[in-house]
Amino acid sequence: MSGVTPVSAILLFGATGDLAQRMLLPSLYGLDESDLLPDDLVIIGTARNPLNDTAFQAAARTALEHHVAAERLIPERVARFLQRLRYVAVDVTDPGQFQHLPRAVGETGRGLAIFLSTAPSLFGVTIAGLAAAGLTGAEVRLALEKPLGDDLASSRMINDLVADLFPEPRIFRIDHYLGKETVQNLLALRFANILFEPMWNAGGVDHIQITVSETVGLEGRVGFYDRAGALRDMVQNHMLQLLALVAMEPPSSFNATSVRDDKVKVLRSLRRLDAATVPTHTVIGQYQTGAIAGGLVPGYRDELGGPSETETFVALKAHVDNWRWKGVPFYLRTGKRLPTRHSEIFIQFKPVPHSIFHGVAVEANKLVIRLQPQENIRLLMMSKQPGLDRDGIRLQEVPLDLGLTNVFAETRRRIAYERLLLDLIEGDPTLFVRRDEVEAQWDWIDAIRAGWRANSMAPKPYAAGTWGPSAAIGLTERDGVSWHD
Amino acid sequence: MSGVTPVSAILLFGATGDLAQRMLLPSLYGLDESDLLPDDLVIIGTARNPLNDTAFQAAARTALEHHVAAERLIPERVARFLQRLRYVAVDVTDPGQFQHLPRAVGETGRGLAIFLSTAPSLFGVTIAGLAAAGLTGAEVRLALEKPLGDDLASSRMINDLVADLFPEPRIFRIDHYLGKETVQNLLALRFANILFEPMWNAGGVDHIQITVSETVGLEGRVGFYDRAGALRDMVQNHMLQLLALVAMEPPSSFNATSVRDDKVKVLRSLRRLDAATVPTHTVIGQYQTGAIAGGLVPGYRDELGGPSETETFVALKAHVDNWRWKGVPFYLRTGKRLPTRHSEIFIQFKPVPHSIFHGVAVEANKLVIRLQPQENIRLLMMSKQPGLDRDGIRLQEVPLDLGLTNVFAETRRRIAYERLLLDLIEGDPTLFVRRDEVEAQWDWIDAIRAGWRANSMAPKPYAAGTWGPSAAIGLTERDGVSWHD
Repeated sequence: MSGVTPVSAILLFGATGDLAQRMLLPSLYGLDESDLLPDDLVIIGTARNPLNDTAFQAAARTALEHHVAAERLIPERVARFLQRLRYVAVDVTDPGQFQHLPRAVGETGRGLAIFLSTAPSLFGVTIAGLAAAGLTGAEVRLALEKPLGDDLASSRMINDLVADLFPEPRIFRIDHYLGKETVQNLLALRFANILFEPMWNAGGVDHIQITVSETVGLEGRVGFYDRAGALRDMVQNHMLQLLALVAMEPPSSFNATSVRDDKVKVLRSLRRLDAATVPTHTVIGQYQTGAIAGGLVPGYRDELGGPSETETFVALKAHVDNWRWKGVPFYLRTGKRLPTRHSEIFIQFKPVPHSIFHGVAVEANKLVIRLQPQENIRLLMMSKQPGLDRDGIRLQEVPLDLGLTNVFAETRRRIAYERLLLDLIEGDPTLFVRRDEVEAQWDWIDAIRAGWRANSMAPKPYAAGTWGPSAAIGLTERDGVSWHD
Repeated sequence: MSGVTPVSAILLFGATGDLAQRMLLPSLYGLDESDLLPDDLVIIGTARNPLNDTAFQAAARTALEHHVAAERLIPERVARFLQRLRYVAVDVTDPGQFQHLPRAVGETGRGLAIFLSTAPSLFGVTIAGLAAAGLTGAEVRLALEKPLGDDLASSRMINDLVADLFPEPRIFRIDHYLGKETVQNLLALRFANILFEPMWNAGGVDHIQITVSETVGLEGRVGFYDRAGALRDMVQNHMLQLLALVAMEPPSSFNATSVRDDKVKVLRSLRRLDAATVPTHTVIGQYQTGAIAGGLVPGYRDELGGPSETETFVALKAHVDNWRWKGVPFYLRTGKRLPTRHSEIFIQFKPVPHSIFHGVAVEANKLVIRLQPQENIRLLMMSKQPGLDRDGIRLQEVPLDLGLTNVFAETRRRIAYERLLLDLIEGDPTLFVRRDEVEAQWDWIDAIRAGWRANSMAPKPYAAGTWGPSAAIGLTERDGVSWHD
């Protein structure tokens, strides 16, 4: 992209970790399978574990076998991919160990992409080690996985630390939601079609809902999650990014600067919630024991093995204070142990100003942008029911699928990380999050948390397998709005 | 509808004619099959032929066998339907013969619907005969089939004649296009959804095309067609009605008065073509021998068996001079012996004002409302092609079917006449054409024909199986527009 040459090496910190095994290695394999990686690209895994190349390659093979469909594991393709893999054991807390890296990385003239899939607490020592080892030059890009801090202050610290050695254009902050086809398609839908934009504002939109629901509980993330909570784990990053993409003004160009400029404008226009407004604009919950898919599951504190005031559910009502969105509520909710796993953006348009069809229910148009479990974009419109209309015309809501699943059925759905890793390799930062965005997100989130503390708000219990505390229903119903389930 | 009781008898003039056999009797059967006719409804056929009830019933059975799917001809249903049929021979040119009708019709207290499916030249004597026989009372509705005259003057004569005995609310002028599901669905689409209306004007629409193409030649209509020509046979009625429905302002109510008030406003806003503008705004053609569906077919004059200056093709560019449609061309074309049989309204929206996707083709949105051969409404939108976008984002036009054929696949498509006959029986004139509409249509058509005469315009030859004379292509291409084939 834009004249930048692809790197010749990827250096992957956290190579034996969960993300690397489940997502990053399978994604890199997917790219290699499609001949999209530079022929000479070397992938150097690193972690504390004392492995050699062969052991790392064997671990990678196992990861592929678990996370890639069997029919895609063509032996010669797998072999070619595994040959790219090297391993260097580095305990990042020991500065001396970074000295092993330059030799493994080799000549970085064509560029090196470093991917930090490690705990943010290790970012500082890692960056310092990289600097000492001479791996922060102009040809090096740095990709960072979330969480990037746990509030604005800590996020700034990380960003300052990184900024000392990497200028912003070489920092690739990952929000994997931006790698999803449907998220990108949302931009195509909005800006390659003239039909939506005239209604895409306070004049045409009644409200917007963003839901990211999980059925899982704590899983293995005990320590991290209990410190973070739903607001910081999901809203601060993914959901605010979705909100920004839905609400942004048309950028002048689909490039990194324009798109991110217009996203950050939205994030900075979010109406600040504070101690006075959080009690009415936010609801937090924590799941108790309950039934998911017919099976009984334990409550959060049981899973955690101790008391906790961490929210596993949050619902909130946000506003974007600008001309376009004046008065339009954005309802966000996310949580664990909810009845279904799905992520979607739901746009409820206003009803027609006057119905010419007296006595006939005319549903307002809706647009559902679904990211999980199946990516799809569906427009709900009213149509006449065929028939002779003896009791007057009959109208019916019909779904129009801008169907990734239908129209493009033949194409394999790629993992979001495939797109992001390839953009990293090729140097296109459009789908990565810029510092000003992250900090605007934290700024807004911190105010909510401060409001909770000021009000001593504790999470309300909800039974696993339900849509959160009943107050979350009340949050929208008070406005005459129902959550789209 | 609206408190009017269904009639107890239908009196059908022209009962042995083509329309009755192909459309009216099968439609009445379709209604009876669905138990939609009043139990005691009697259908009295009349024509000059000396038949009795039994012979007419036999002819009706044959008509059903030819024009209704065999699986729908359930013997007891057919028998019940045939029992409704009576026949009275009437030569309408002999006033005395009308005296047979009242007895056959019986008590009309619950109402009588008279359907004139005869040559307009017989309307006068028929109406006079009905008056003399006392069949024009307040409980009698009169349905008229086209053609209603061949210019404004003759149309007025017919209308005056009818108006002497029937007030306008009891006159049901048929344009069978208005009975089509998709035509009615166009109103649902426009006025039960908020999405289209903001773009449904000169700000959002680039141009509109209306095409009614036939593959057939003269068929049996030699005498009539050669006197009428394509402009009067198709444009004056069906196509101007479609134009009116597409272009109309939102009526305040979906009822006969509101809908027709707003249609007639459009028809009266049509910019008059005249001697100065017809040469550049209209194209006429006459088919020569050529190939249709792989077979050679004769030219129009060969079929006719003599010289003729009648147009079998017309294309024209119209404008609706009001605020909504300022500067938006409406391209209309219709003809015989064209490559395909289809009727559609094609709405070309304007392109996005600025493409953020540099170097990528962004097709403007389109809406295709297809009436024939398959009814369907299709919206064409741009979507992102799934993929990793290595050479920049790829967009693709995808069709969204507001699919009568898909969503409502289980419902049998009814004949347009089923709807119109039932509305006639029940007394709802919404989908019938009011006098002021017909006359506004003729007014506009007459000016075009006067312009042709003033310019001595003769039809240009076109080969059967082509889209008319090349000048028809030029008509739109001069404006940078291509016909949607």
